[in-house]
Amino acid sequence: MTKSIRPLSPRTQVRRQPSRGAYDRDTIHAFLDAILVGHVGFNDPEHGHPTVIPTLIARIDDDLLFHTSRISRLAEAARGAEICVSAMIEDGLVLAKSAFHHSMNYRSVVAFGKAREIVATDEKYAALTAFTDKLVPGRGPHIRPPSAKELNITAIFALSLEEASAKSRTGGPADDPDDLSLPVDVGVIPITRHMGSMIKF
Amino acid sequence: MTKSIRPLSPRTQVRRQPSRGAYDRDTIHAFLDAILVGHVGFNDPEHGHPTVIPTLIARIDDDLLFHTSRISRLAEAARGAEICVSAMIEDGLVLAKSAFHHSMNYRSVVAFGKAREIVATDEKYAALTAFTDKLVPGRGPHIRPPSAKELNITAIFALSLEEASAKSRTGGPADDPDDLSLPVDVGVIPITRHMGSMIKF
Repeated sequence: MTKSIRPLSPRTQVRRQPSRGAYDRDTIHAFLDAILVGHVGFNDPEHGHPTVIPTLIARIDDDLLFHTSRISRLAEAARGAEICVSAMIEDGLVLAKSAFHHSMNYRSVVAFGKAREIVATDEKYAALTAFTDKLVPGRGPHIRPPSAKELNITAIFALSLEEASAKSRTGGPADDPDDLSLPVDVGVIPITRHMGSMIKF
Repeated sequence: MTKSIRPLSPRTQVRRQPSRGAYDRDTIHAFLDAILVGHVGFNDPEHGHPTVIPTLIARIDDDLLFHTSRISRLAEAARGAEICVSAMIEDGLVLAKSAFHHSMNYRSVVAFGKAREIVATDEKYAALTAFTDKLVPGRGPHIRPPSAKELNITAIFALSLEEASAKSRTGGPADDPDDLSLPVDVGVIPITRHMGSMIKF
């Protein structure tokens, strides 16, 4: 697969631990597809302070999608103002010889820009199907599709991944050479997201 | 246990689905203690746009703690400007008869305010121990404590939980009565965070 490297912008370039950054489309898409929830940052439309809201994310092509109530603060802010969506998945606890080198393994994406509100009915349907498929792939055709009223009270936004970067950490601890002889077990405790069997209602 | 209810502020009051909100100290603390990573929202010190960074969180009493490099954008922003920390843990996928009523079960906390940078050496030690204990309770005494240099390049911030709220969703789907006869399985797929056995290095 070819890697489509996008140009760096000052705000997407990973500055802390730059070797952990990635900017190609395939990596960004793969990380996002593994992550259920994104944290959307915006300035409160009324009071101006930074606000971060967790919300289910989905993806179609190079757009990150999220939805909210048509009248939420998030919807109001996302109509025209700059936002930032940050999403991560925990992969492991990194246990080192020293307190300082304790860390986490993870995959994350951060995307900046102005979102586009999806208003065309067919595009709204497609986006909502992407959300349902994110929860259970292939579930879309089996459930009742959204009514006109439900579509109307749901605001759906697409944030282009044009200005996005991925960051990840993998592997064991990066201990100082002087610490290696200390009698402390070190390694990685893997973290996995376990989906159980459906509890029927 | 008594519930210490804190006064609502306009920005902590849960507006969407207000019945899912909680404002007592015990709930907020319990949710935070179960969550490894918080998403810190701030305005970029140089360019002003909203930025959200995931980072390990810990808690001491009614302070939410996070750390970063002394010279990061996050550290620069957290020294004096308003921030927001949002943290959540996924508890389940809620599968309904209709696309509209699909949802997630979760526990989340959002906290607003200005952070206090921790500078006293003994308080920095205590905070870093809280982080190590968050990863593996009781690990602190077995590892090499931070050196003066390591302490110096680490910025640690405490955000008071005075202006915080919790929000959660539990239980099955909230289907419309008209949909109940549709031949679709509904229920909750529980999500758990599984910690594996340590892979030694």
